[in-house]
Amino acid sequence: MDAVASLNKVTQKNAEQRQATLTKPAGSLGVLERLAIQFAAWQGNDQPQLDKVHISIFAADHGVAEEGVSVFPQVVTGEMVKNFVRGGAAISVLAQHHQATLEIIDVGVKDFPEMEGVIRARAGNASNNIVEEDAMTEAQLQLALEAGREAAERANVSNAQLFIGGEMGIANTTSATAIACALLGVSDAAELTGAGTGLDKVGIKHKSAIVGAILDRYKKELAQQGFEGDNQVLHLLRMVGGFEIVALVGAYMRSAQLGIPVLVDGFITTAAALVAIKINEKIKPWMLFSHCSAESGHAKILSTLDVKSLVDFDMRLGEASGAAVVIPLIQQALALHNNMATFAEAEVSK
Amino acid sequence: MDAVASLNKVTQKNAEQRQATLTKPAGSLGVLERLAIQFAAWQGNDQPQLDKVHISIFAADHGVAEEGVSVFPQVVTGEMVKNFVRGGAAISVLAQHHQATLEIIDVGVKDFPEMEGVIRARAGNASNNIVEEDAMTEAQLQLALEAGREAAERANVSNAQLFIGGEMGIANTTSATAIACALLGVSDAAELTGAGTGLDKVGIKHKSAIVGAILDRYKKELAQQGFEGDNQVLHLLRMVGGFEIVALVGAYMRSAQLGIPVLVDGFITTAAALVAIKINEKIKPWMLFSHCSAESGHAKILSTLDVKSLVDFDMRLGEASGAAVVIPLIQQALALHNNMATFAEAEVSK
Repeated sequence: MDAVASLNKVTQKNAEQRQATLTKPAGSLGVLERLAIQFAAWQGNDQPQLDKVHISIFAADHGVAEEGVSVFPQVVTGEMVKNFVRGGAAISVLAQHHQATLEIIDVGVKDFPEMEGVIRARAGNASNNIVEEDAMTEAQLQLALEAGREAAERANVSNAQLFIGGEMGIANTTSATAIACALLGVSDAAELTGAGTGLDKVGIKHKSAIVGAILDRYKKELAQQGFEGDNQVLHLLRMVGGFEIVALVGAYMRSAQLGIPVLVDGFITTAAALVAIKINEKIKPWMLFSHCSAESGHAKILSTLDVKSLVDFDMRLGEASGAAVVIPLIQQALALHNNMATFAEAEVSK
Repeated sequence: MDAVASLNKVTQKNAEQRQATLTKPAGSLGVLERLAIQFAAWQGNDQPQLDKVHISIFAADHGVAEEGVSVFPQVVTGEMVKNFVRGGAAISVLAQHHQATLEIIDVGVKDFPEMEGVIRARAGNASNNIVEEDAMTEAQLQLALEAGREAAERANVSNAQLFIGGEMGIANTTSATAIACALLGVSDAAELTGAGTGLDKVGIKHKSAIVGAILDRYKKELAQQGFEGDNQVLHLLRMVGGFEIVALVGAYMRSAQLGIPVLVDGFITTAAALVAIKINEKIKPWMLFSHCSAESGHAKILSTLDVKSLVDFDMRLGEASGAAVVIPLIQQALALHNNMATFAEAEVSK
């Protein structure tokens, strides 16, 4: 595996020093100061810029949808992929608003045809129903990881300064919840199971039971086979992950190797980030967590990772929308860092 | 007094209905949905826009600065006014970033000369030291209120869709803290006294004692004279307010009359908002609270007003910077509202 890129400590230090000279009380720009310093370290640039954002949405279907864990039918995954391409979805509007690159990658949408505007990198035709069997084969796992890595490579080729991964896949909070429970050592699935796209109490209880059944199957196999370390994490991913979640893991890992900071979106992408960090903890310093979603398990993963999201807007849409919303926050942080006058320049008493 | 403008319930309803038809799970855009609906109600427009933001920074000096309640010398108020005009301050950078109108109004900066780019509306030459005497005369109070109202009038003439008030004035958190204590019925000044621009523990303790002395003088006079209702609030403002805080109150009140929504900034502006709401509670529905600052009393005023700020970035700079930072959040909310496809348009199953 390639090494994760290093942060530039020199430009980080320079940015810290510059912040202390700008015409404001020290520390008074709070989060905005920390963002500017972080980008200086990532970019190796005393005056970091953010005008090229790369957004990759990975879409796939989930066999577990047949267990009735979502309020939307499975066909919506493919319908939304078309909506992404035609510009009608939330992320389409936000990407255009920010003039960001938006690419849609089919990593396993059920019966989805070739379509202009959709990158075809299918690891399968929907993952299997993870209550009953493993989500995918080892070969499919590798295909999905590669689909993610390729997205990061494309971001790199276009000199993107930020990578945002998003997902679309009816029933994928079920898969993400199972992953989170397994990696966080949460034995009661109800603790992390949320409403997804809008389940009521009864629906959440049913979904929680399904996640419990998935975990039971996983634990049983784990006890029999006894995987360790990285292999255990990848095995979990193969057993209960969806293709889009696996692709996100691959994209995050490759971004960190290429030195492209990652802005993590909501619950599902944070579960993917957790997987990537479990595989290699050096990836974590390349990640920025955008928002804390209304999905109940999200805050728990964030606190386990000991990270704080930038905003909390009560969002729960996925498709990278929560990450896209904080792009202007970063841009403002950098504009302030680069363009404010120093005390000396402005002749202001310090 | 002119009546506060009404919200348009028809366009509000239309916006609510439109949100329910957009291609996303109902409610999944959280705060962004609520912002779009709020702006539809304010603008009387089903498809609200935000491209004209008016930012007015009111600057004034405070006699109480001589009590050593700030880490910066009084001369910094005027120096920062020059920095605003020359484009080097945080709010200058943010206003330019957003192509917002930025105006600087001298309502009483000590010994400040006429200067191109600074609107001269001086109610006095710094307010008095409020530990010893009333901040200003009744005539000065009226002048400062009028300076604020005139800013709102200018915003209205230029068809601004949002009014942001900001302030600059060394020692003005002392004045704002005294106002907040009086209006919230907090008898222990320490409960609301914060670090301002960066006091240490000893400095905060001293400042807290100064605020306590101000409150003692206020209460004593109140007991003797027994003002009631509006008069009591205006009397408080005259006794302990700074010119810029009074101007903010005037600007907020006039904005609500003119039907221009107000985006409130940090601790000092929220104290001014509290005063305006105490004078006329109908002003409150025209206010949006941008951020919760690191100044310790801010959260307390927000909770007393029963409002939630949009973000919490640990900022404590003032000069409207916290409000300016959330402009893009509103713009994104409106872009999503206006440009997303409906389920019918996108042929997505609901």
